[in-house]
Amino acid sequence: MTRVQDIYPDDRVSLREVGLRDGLQLVKTFPSTAAKQRWMRQEYGAGVRHFEVGSFLPATTFPQFADVRHIVRTLAELPGAHGIALALNERGVNEAAAISMALGCSITGPVAPNEVIKLVEKCLEAGVDFVAIADTVGYAGPKQVAELTRAAAKISGAKPVCVHLHDTRGMGIANASAALDAGARILDGSLGGLGGCPFAPGATGNVVFEDLVFLCESQGFDTGIDIEKLVEVRSILRLEMPGEPLYGGLARAGLPGGAGERAVRSG
Amino acid sequence: MTRVQDIYPDDRVSLREVGLRDGLQLVKTFPSTAAKQRWMRQEYGAGVRHFEVGSFLPATTFPQFADVRHIVRTLAELPGAHGIALALNERGVNEAAAISMALGCSITGPVAPNEVIKLVEKCLEAGVDFVAIADTVGYAGPKQVAELTRAAAKISGAKPVCVHLHDTRGMGIANASAALDAGARILDGSLGGLGGCPFAPGATGNVVFEDLVFLCESQGFDTGIDIEKLVEVRSILRLEMPGEPLYGGLARAGLPGGAGERAVRSG
Repeated sequence: MTRVQDIYPDDRVSLREVGLRDGLQLVKTFPSTAAKQRWMRQEYGAGVRHFEVGSFLPATTFPQFADVRHIVRTLAELPGAHGIALALNERGVNEAAAISMALGCSITGPVAPNEVIKLVEKCLEAGVDFVAIADTVGYAGPKQVAELTRAAAKISGAKPVCVHLHDTRGMGIANASAALDAGARILDGSLGGLGGCPFAPGATGNVVFEDLVFLCESQGFDTGIDIEKLVEVRSILRLEMPGEPLYGGLARAGLPGGAGERAVRSG
Repeated sequence: MTRVQDIYPDDRVSLREVGLRDGLQLVKTFPSTAAKQRWMRQEYGAGVRHFEVGSFLPATTFPQFADVRHIVRTLAELPGAHGIALALNERGVNEAAAISMALGCSITGPVAPNEVIKLVEKCLEAGVDFVAIADTVGYAGPKQVAELTRAAAKISGAKPVCVHLHDTRGMGIANASAALDAGARILDGSLGGLGGCPFAPGATGNVVFEDLVFLCESQGFDTGIDIEKLVEVRSILRLEMPGEPLYGGLARAGLPGGAGERAVRSG
């Protein structure tokens, strides 16, 4: 029997690439199946082991996920890789998925932390492998994220806490840092920060995956991911979705290192 | 006699707009004097009280600061506003300015925290009003920023610690959050994240000022700044420097609030 610790080892931070699902939720153009497969394989080569691969929502409404079965099969060919696919009907979205809007709701506004923690308790009682808290609309600041993560980690025991953040208001990496400090050991991001949220039109996407790796490594956590190889995968997205903006500091500036940069002038 | 506490009150975080100097250090086109004055006045109207206004470097090399005396006079007309202008010769840049490259150097690589703290001690002995630590090239992660800020705050006593961060690798806001937690009470940013660093070509600029305000307020610190009014000032930059990319999550998504956003569909 596979235990949750086999999938998400205790001694590292597990970073999940959600670009293939969450990242494609709202896009107008989307990668071909072959490009998705290259995207996944190339990230696997960079050390990524966790992928959200698509959803089983109706292909008439979400044609970008029509190939989800192919993508799941490709994933299965990669030793040690783990996948998640959303399987829900629209009514069930709030009940079946991670605890979304846990840190603020675009419809009702602030969300009481106690209500979220009650929901976490119910999920744990129901036997979930781990609890995921999501700031779907990017309302939270680091303090709020830290408090909720700490409370969830306290009642989760040996089960890991996952925190899913969006960079809607520029707080993504700061919130991820706060989540890490508070005990989260599974974090989600998407390459180039791809993706948005249907509840927050105009808002940008998930936390930039490359920057998330840099954050974790700089905090002393092993991610097993080669940042430079990861950054190279962006070329697939540029080619397949030329209209989609890609974000990220790492891709822009490269890893710190004396060699690549020169003093131009003082000032 | 003006005390440092009169300029940077103990009971709030003082945020400094460095866009008019650091933000313009590398740009090819720059705002007219009148536009700079509007920029400053309009931010003053939003509650900003601290401005880096320019530098006294030779106008032949840095024409963007040729009007620094005008800008200083404009600042002087705004009650309660405080300004900084760089006054240094090129040889003096490393000695006279804030402790730049305190968290990593694009020429020598990592910087030993002990060396920085020794320099902080020397500055304090020399009678400076406060110490500023700068991650000029955006090398640091939150852990490193927290450690250095905490060490500086410990020996600074009643004098505030200023942390000047760049968002080069997407860590800007996370580092600012860590600095706040570690006791920094003066933070620098620039509207739209304008600016770069001459030692790190291709790198993006200062921490986005609007996002910095949102961070501080979400952490429970009073900044005295109206974010929405602040965001409006971006239109001046767009008009005057159409080629310069402006960054920032707040400007893109707006403040959290049920009213401005609607559920479109689930997923």
